[in-house]
Amino acid sequence: MRNIKIIIEYDGTEYSGWQIQNNATSVQGELLKAIFTITGEKVILNGSGRTDAGVHAKGQVANFKTESNISGDKFAYALNSVLPKDIAVKESKEVYNDFHARYCAIGKKYSYTFLNSRHPSPILRKFAYHINYCDKLSIEILKEACAYFTGTHDFYGFMSTGSKVKDTVRTIGDITIEIEGEIIRISYVGNGFLYNMVRIITGTILYSAIGKINAYELPKIILSKNRTLAGITVPANGLCLEKVYY
Amino acid sequence: MRNIKIIIEYDGTEYSGWQIQNNATSVQGELLKAIFTITGEKVILNGSGRTDAGVHAKGQVANFKTESNISGDKFAYALNSVLPKDIAVKESKEVYNDFHARYCAIGKKYSYTFLNSRHPSPILRKFAYHINYCDKLSIEILKEACAYFTGTHDFYGFMSTGSKVKDTVRTIGDITIEIEGEIIRISYVGNGFLYNMVRIITGTILYSAIGKINAYELPKIILSKNRTLAGITVPANGLCLEKVYY
Repeated sequence: MRNIKIIIEYDGTEYSGWQIQNNATSVQGELLKAIFTITGEKVILNGSGRTDAGVHAKGQVANFKTESNISGDKFAYALNSVLPKDIAVKESKEVYNDFHARYCAIGKKYSYTFLNSRHPSPILRKFAYHINYCDKLSIEILKEACAYFTGTHDFYGFMSTGSKVKDTVRTIGDITIEIEGEIIRISYVGNGFLYNMVRIITGTILYSAIGKINAYELPKIILSKNRTLAGITVPANGLCLEKVYY
Repeated sequence: MRNIKIIIEYDGTEYSGWQIQNNATSVQGELLKAIFTITGEKVILNGSGRTDAGVHAKGQVANFKTESNISGDKFAYALNSVLPKDIAVKESKEVYNDFHARYCAIGKKYSYTFLNSRHPSPILRKFAYHINYCDKLSIEILKEACAYFTGTHDFYGFMSTGSKVKDTVRTIGDITIEIEGEIIRISYVGNGFLYNMVRIITGTILYSAIGKINAYELPKIILSKNRTLAGITVPANGLCLEKVYY
């Protein structure tokens, strides 16, 4: 059995998320169908982690074992010929047998994109969350708020209920902000992220930047482990899994 | 009667083009419906010019006369509240009575976006034409080819049949190329463009850059006025009307 690693980009708009489930269209389900079509095999496809309904990816990673003799780098072409247009394999290669997309991951990069504009953008609508705080959003406070979240913290208060994770300590190594006209993109590199953690941190940073939360209280809010003191969970459409590190 | 100028952005993917027509969904038709919904008036909506099926716009301009007392800048908000999500008014204002979006236009800017990559991009698929000439596309020759098209030329050979235009001389003031990773964007500023002219010039520049046409023969090809010597008409999805100048 050969072990194949694939890097996947998807427009998550029409999907119930990464994870295969009954009665819903998932990215993992579409990939399994495509692998079956080209190899005739019902494989196990390990993703690096789930992404929620409507969340996008430029660099999701998965692996599967196959008896097929398609060469590693050709899987991308073969799979793309049968995948729906909103999912594509950007790279495929044969890797050592023990590689596991989830267990071997040591970190991830997510980006969250806002469009801060008086009017919506049809062209960006699926990949940026439209906000209209043109008069009151402070980029200075946005940057200040971001800084409070870097480092190692117990992010218990920045997790949606429904998660069974016990250890809620995570390290965010780096948060970067890019501004291009009305577009604001915040990127997070960390060793792992709790359920909805990026979307809740982003909502909290947004609330700080528009004055609904005092930025200087963020350290206290993080320590409180109290979800209700944080900001909103911003919508899925602005979120993108950019990269998985191994 | 007040005269209202609007600047419109649209994702043209699902439309038969700008122009209203029977049995097809058009951008102009959707705007007329929206104007009727908010004013109760059946207005005449003058666009700066047509865009074809599948072509996008960030800066299409139109104007209409109204008896409504909605203030100029508020039309954008009112129209956006009823327009489909793939069309939005980015700006609206009251202008002098003689302003006409088509007759007063003195120039336009179009952009054409390629993704030159081994594999398609789900996220860019609606706004970039995917090509796979990673090994043979020369950016140097692309730049050289662009230079041949600036200036005043008879672009008869760069027009699709079906146009009744008599004067086919146009001036392209500036062509700029932006490269960002695998994305190549060519922008054209000119005093006017013939039917499919941007898509045929872009296809010809592409053919030069991949060696299917010798770039040094481009002046001769332009002078020949022979459509069959030019390159392909590249697909609509990469084209965007960026701006109309007045």
